[in-house]
Amino acid sequence: MGNIETIERLSLNQITTDKWNLREAVDGCARADIPSIAIWRHKLTELGLAESKKVVQDAGLSVSSLCRGGMFPAATNLERQERIEDNKRAIEEAAELGTDVLVLVCGPAPDKDIDAARKMVAEGIEQIIPFAQEHGIKLGIEPLHPMYAAERSVIVTLNQANTLVEQFKTDAVGVVVDVFHVWWDPDLYNQISRASGKILGYHVSDWIVPTPDLLMGRGMMGDGVIDLRKIRNAVEKAGYKGPIEVEIFNEEIWNRPGDQVLGQIKERYLEFV
Amino acid sequence: MGNIETIERLSLNQITTDKWNLREAVDGCARADIPSIAIWRHKLTELGLAESKKVVQDAGLSVSSLCRGGMFPAATNLERQERIEDNKRAIEEAAELGTDVLVLVCGPAPDKDIDAARKMVAEGIEQIIPFAQEHGIKLGIEPLHPMYAAERSVIVTLNQANTLVEQFKTDAVGVVVDVFHVWWDPDLYNQISRASGKILGYHVSDWIVPTPDLLMGRGMMGDGVIDLRKIRNAVEKAGYKGPIEVEIFNEEIWNRPGDQVLGQIKERYLEFV
Repeated sequence: MGNIETIERLSLNQITTDKWNLREAVDGCARADIPSIAIWRHKLTELGLAESKKVVQDAGLSVSSLCRGGMFPAATNLERQERIEDNKRAIEEAAELGTDVLVLVCGPAPDKDIDAARKMVAEGIEQIIPFAQEHGIKLGIEPLHPMYAAERSVIVTLNQANTLVEQFKTDAVGVVVDVFHVWWDPDLYNQISRASGKILGYHVSDWIVPTPDLLMGRGMMGDGVIDLRKIRNAVEKAGYKGPIEVEIFNEEIWNRPGDQVLGQIKERYLEFV
Repeated sequence: MGNIETIERLSLNQITTDKWNLREAVDGCARADIPSIAIWRHKLTELGLAESKKVVQDAGLSVSSLCRGGMFPAATNLERQERIEDNKRAIEEAAELGTDVLVLVCGPAPDKDIDAARKMVAEGIEQIIPFAQEHGIKLGIEPLHPMYAAERSVIVTLNQANTLVEQFKTDAVGVVVDVFHVWWDPDLYNQISRASGKILGYHVSDWIVPTPDLLMGRGMMGDGVIDLRKIRNAVEKAGYKGPIEVEIFNEEIWNRPGDQVLGQIKERYLEFV
């Protein structure tokens, strides 16, 4: 398989233009003919949910996913129950916005017992599945890079995410593949194949060298070492034909004019993704 | 298994007191009754190999390992051959210094083909095994954290290291387990068990939160989230009773007086490792 020839599957993950509020990001996508956007929950507070939905609909954009649910492990049962409630709010918001995917960033351990935290993740997902099903929302487990194991997610490999998905035996749960998080994995292509029919999202960026920062060090596609085309081909072979989100945490990119960033995203998407 | 009761297995990995040259590090260990040191090759250039050896021997220290060989992948055959020659020099230096372990940091890919680079690592190790055997040196494959996959090592899991070791079918090759690199791995305890009889070194530090930096963000034992005792118990159950190296890359620790750092290392070693 070769180049992608159009941008019809391209989605702007809103964090890539973090300086823009939702209205500005939607307007930017409209100007750039980018058909889809992934929305972050903390950005919804700027306009409120109803107005956010209206802004997106009026522009004719589709919503590829809502970021994020998850964050299941916590020290006490009460706290874990609060996380469940928050996930239910996220599911409602996703449904209201008209996307069918809630991305799950599963959360770090509350203490040194990472195995126990992994069990809390499984229990948390299990608890929200019925609510997700009622709202027509699919839960996308996104394994994060192991360097985030202590602060963001004890789910750090696609293998783990696949094992969780298989455990639940429902179409309401799948995986999200983000190249930045999984490119290093010696078992990557086996695990993508294993995820066939269960991939709910595909995120691109690049791993730049030298890597400037753990969180803010992602690069524009083509600027780094990830074999993007090879991974996309594998993801497509596994049956995924949905939106491809560009999700880049990078201070330097955030500081550039958004329209310029969107222009470069389109070029790099067609050339490298 | 409980606390370690003495410091007889404690080794100072020289990088932990990076501001000290080898003579100062050796004197520091002697003052602190730390019986063993791990030496870095770039530190040997300060005194030269012969004088370095004399300084260590005169202080009665043993050398737990030499850091580092490896760095096998390269774009051309000529470059790869140069890396092999450099590894042979490292083996000679290790033998001269009286250690039996050369730590291998296997190197990054020269391009986007990480699988090809992994093959180059296997070929590189295979080429230096006979030379290592002649010199009585064991090659310790150290998987690095996946966040170093692009810059330091395409070998990022203990699973990969174990697979390489089993492939070579010789006691001249084993693995080095560093908690900082492997603590996040969902398959860690299986892989430590699989490495039984093949563990050539054990390194400790901690993973601190928030993590300040990719390279310089390691913490003192007890300051982070790693369950050090659980991992040591697993490593001992797998038959490893050798030196335990404290290896910390951290600017703040480097800037403290070395004797103070060594004092804290001893306390933390007895309390947390």
